[in-house]
Amino acid sequence: MQLACFTLMRTLGIDPGTAIMGWGVVDEQGGQITLVATGALTTPAGMPHPERLRILYDGLCELIARHRPDDAAIEELFFGKNVNTAITVGQARGVALLALVQAGLSIHEYKPTVVKQAVAGYGGADKKQMQEMVRVTLGLAAAPRPDDAADALAIAICHAYTGPTLRRMAGE
Amino acid sequence: MQLACFTLMRTLGIDPGTAIMGWGVVDEQGGQITLVATGALTTPAGMPHPERLRILYDGLCELIARHRPDDAAIEELFFGKNVNTAITVGQARGVALLALVQAGLSIHEYKPTVVKQAVAGYGGADKKQMQEMVRVTLGLAAAPRPDDAADALAIAICHAYTGPTLRRMAGE
Repeated sequence: MQLACFTLMRTLGIDPGTAIMGWGVVDEQGGQITLVATGALTTPAGMPHPERLRILYDGLCELIARHRPDDAAIEELFFGKNVNTAITVGQARGVALLALVQAGLSIHEYKPTVVKQAVAGYGGADKKQMQEMVRVTLGLAAAPRPDDAADALAIAICHAYTGPTLRRMAGE
Repeated sequence: MQLACFTLMRTLGIDPGTAIMGWGVVDEQGGQITLVATGALTTPAGMPHPERLRILYDGLCELIARHRPDDAAIEELFFGKNVNTAITVGQARGVALLALVQAGLSIHEYKPTVVKQAVAGYGGADKKQMQEMVRVTLGLAAAPRPDDAADALAIAICHAYTGPTLRRMAGE
């Protein structure tokens, strides 16, 4: 009898934004990736930014406590967005990174093209193709909603594929 | 005998950045503005961003606990910076706003031109003129160092000048 032991790795993927912050938790074990939970934190449009950042931070801290991920994954860079958008996305990203580092998670950043390459097989995949590949990878009947949740799952899946290689390289 | 009662208002001004975050605390009472403390939180260049954000957040929480400001003031917008800079400044600004809102401070945002108008008398004042006006306003022998501390004090002074008017408008 042969016993195969595979480490289970749980990843929290985040798609940061002030109005809506997508999140997704996946487990990877022996190359199999399964969905644990996904969703989006939302804040009311008229609310001042500091209050919105507090809601996102508190929500993320609660998610981390509930799902206890090992690793966190987040997109590294933003393209084609203007400076004002970059500031507000940066603010949301800042409180997300703070919640992750305070929880002691290993934080991994991936460029959008790397996420597309890992999930859909090529770096030029469009939004629809990415959502379909997230659906297929996780064996779901329909793509997760809202789009921000699917985006966060794509980042988590990217890390779940990459994680075992990273662990091997680190000599674990 | 006439007794004049003036509310003392303590303002924390912040100039956000990841490598260096300037801060300055001023008291305003009856139109007189005095320096309480100023300085800058710094993080090492090679350190990953999440760790740097944690240092800035922890440092700011400590400053708030030590100086117990009533209000906080921060610049509203950034001009002439590229998208990557905007994201990293946004991240630092995000954890700063979080620390301020968690402490229950009244947070006020001012455009750079408004800060210049309030401190130097016109919206086109340059960096050197602003530093000199901060020095004169606070009755200091030399302009505060580093520049980020002087910038933070300028924002705090702007709010200290504006605060009494805001209070009157709020019917206090």
